[in-house]
Amino acid sequence: MTQNNDVRISTPAKTTRQAIAPDSFVAVFNADEPLLLESGSQLAPFQIAYQCYGTLNADKSNAILICHPLTCDQHVANIHPVTGKAGWWDAMVGPKKVIDTNQYFVICPNVLGGCLGSTGPASINPKTNQPYALDFPIITIGDIVNSQAMLIDRLGIETLFAVIGGSMGGMQALQWAATFKQRVFSCVLLATTSRHSAQNIAFDEIGRQAVMADPQWQEGRYLEKGCFPKAGLAVARMTAHITYLSETMLHHKFGRNLQNRAEVTFGFDADFQIESYLRHQGSTFVERFDANSYLYLTRAMDYFDLAADYDNCLANAFRNTTTRFFVASFSSDWLFSTAQSQVIVQALNAAGASVSFTEIQSQKGHDAFLLDEKVMVSTMQAFICSAARARGLKLD
Amino acid sequence: MTQNNDVRISTPAKTTRQAIAPDSFVAVFNADEPLLLESGSQLAPFQIAYQCYGTLNADKSNAILICHPLTCDQHVANIHPVTGKAGWWDAMVGPKKVIDTNQYFVICPNVLGGCLGSTGPASINPKTNQPYALDFPIITIGDIVNSQAMLIDRLGIETLFAVIGGSMGGMQALQWAATFKQRVFSCVLLATTSRHSAQNIAFDEIGRQAVMADPQWQEGRYLEKGCFPKAGLAVARMTAHITYLSETMLHHKFGRNLQNRAEVTFGFDADFQIESYLRHQGSTFVERFDANSYLYLTRAMDYFDLAADYDNCLANAFRNTTTRFFVASFSSDWLFSTAQSQVIVQALNAAGASVSFTEIQSQKGHDAFLLDEKVMVSTMQAFICSAARARGLKLD
Repeated sequence: MTQNNDVRISTPAKTTRQAIAPDSFVAVFNADEPLLLESGSQLAPFQIAYQCYGTLNADKSNAILICHPLTCDQHVANIHPVTGKAGWWDAMVGPKKVIDTNQYFVICPNVLGGCLGSTGPASINPKTNQPYALDFPIITIGDIVNSQAMLIDRLGIETLFAVIGGSMGGMQALQWAATFKQRVFSCVLLATTSRHSAQNIAFDEIGRQAVMADPQWQEGRYLEKGCFPKAGLAVARMTAHITYLSETMLHHKFGRNLQNRAEVTFGFDADFQIESYLRHQGSTFVERFDANSYLYLTRAMDYFDLAADYDNCLANAFRNTTTRFFVASFSSDWLFSTAQSQVIVQALNAAGASVSFTEIQSQKGHDAFLLDEKVMVSTMQAFICSAARARGLKLD
Repeated sequence: MTQNNDVRISTPAKTTRQAIAPDSFVAVFNADEPLLLESGSQLAPFQIAYQCYGTLNADKSNAILICHPLTCDQHVANIHPVTGKAGWWDAMVGPKKVIDTNQYFVICPNVLGGCLGSTGPASINPKTNQPYALDFPIITIGDIVNSQAMLIDRLGIETLFAVIGGSMGGMQALQWAATFKQRVFSCVLLATTSRHSAQNIAFDEIGRQAVMADPQWQEGRYLEKGCFPKAGLAVARMTAHITYLSETMLHHKFGRNLQNRAEVTFGFDADFQIESYLRHQGSTFVERFDANSYLYLTRAMDYFDLAADYDNCLANAFRNTTTRFFVASFSSDWLFSTAQSQVIVQALNAAGASVSFTEIQSQKGHDAFLLDEKVMVSTMQAFICSAARARGLKLD
């Protein structure tokens, strides 16, 4: 039996250290600047960790906010302090790349509820001097966006040139465009949705149940007890990971290929490459992510239903908007399908907004937006350049 | 926190009792009748538990073998001894139903490796007088079918009028048609595949990892230790259950409807009906299914690749067949898609077999084959009647 060997890893001490003392800039909001949460409770003090790339111009008109997806973080285009790997969107963000850090000032905050320096369930609760764990309040996408707005205020930026996000990052970008119409000049929405579907909620619930079923979870108090629900979080990650990939891509990449062996072993070892790959995904994820953060952030996604805040009419969220929108879906993405992007596009059209929509043909499933898909690169580049001209930005 | 209440259930003593002393007929094969397994090892003694309905005619030409799917069992059309519920295919099997027990003699065996009376990992290993647990040999769909053939021999039946199965049951039916060409007059294949895809294997692997990650699993020896990996098996079942349903059906049935409450609770309770439904599916499943059986049977499905036994040419499996085939897929089934059925149909056509294929429009996903879908009912009925005439059966 090797399945336990495959997921046997150390407690993610590096992640925990980053939760408290991140290798990032930190904006601290003290007790006199509380965040009013949608649940009705307040969070104070709190902090937002963020990375910056490029230079803010004199009139502060070239700032781009990148909102990260569920399992990414603020390290969008630099070496990750925990994994030592390149940033998660290194393909898109950097000098002379689509999001050109020679031209734009790029800000990427760790989401509220995250585990890389922004206040979340692994942060110390000042009332107890212990990690919050489940005493951390339930947060929503709206709360995440409001905390980001406080960061943008702190940076002295009135209007963002662009808010860009994919997947859960797209939810945030959409919420930004709805809540802060005057502050979002353009908005890029990739592989996202205006509300989490029953199937999405179902997969999230599997992940949460897997974490909570792990006795090492200790009702959320694993950090104080020096343990970590590795096995449960690994199963959650493995489940989610399948939903990020298309069936076609899985077939082309793995098929029924065997893992380092000529024949099946007639056992429960990882005979197939897909099994080995999933176990690897599970075991590396638990080194860089906090289990309670996973619970809170998936819950925030489940609660996301933007239309519900606007009399169940999504178009109402965008009445009188002047934001320019770019929406892209990916043909093989079955988690956030083209149909879900079309709901957004229809609402934007109904509100008379400026919107460019493209369904990108790709076999790479939901994760395609993280890669340098040619059509995504070229259409996003054209959109951003056009928006920059409209904004009167002088590009080199 | 109520998530633990939702899955807190008794150790499945009823299932364990059924594994040893089932409420079914039992065919016992002693040490002198070993089952030669594809792995090269032998299983002896072993037994197959089975249910029968209707009457075998004088020339033994009206026998139908029903092969059950992964999480069902032999109780196809009678009250289930553990759950007290109707048989899993009560809609299709019974007097004057599509599989008419007034006309046919219906046999449904519990699969080898199962937990309702056929020898499996919960059975007593005669060498140790303890449950086999992981000392049970790895079995394949071919092994399951070979054990069923020994049962059919025991019943004195040379040729089955029909072998019928959906999903994992379809795998068995397909294997029957390939291995025992002369013994299968007609074959009904519903929502199935000739080989498990990478995505299928991936979902199975999640389920196995969830079970094995549960400390109550005890490296498989939970029965001796008086415990049971309820939480892990519930997560496995919940994951699998999502794959049995279509996104459309989930949306129509649950949408984002809340469970017995007017507003979200801002917590980790089952706010949404889909969450509550999944937790229920998980908790009821563990009362009637053995965790190790789940490991072994998902593994048997993963290993299924019929073409691999025929020089990777599926048509070779059916050369010179005289069996009449009926193949049906369901439009919203993304687990065993229409494309997978078409692979079977193309191979049958290439082999010159008689095959009727239909894709049934349904929003009910993979589980549609378990329900009384109108078009499935009418087309299957027509196929079976036509086959009965060809077989020279006199129907009332």
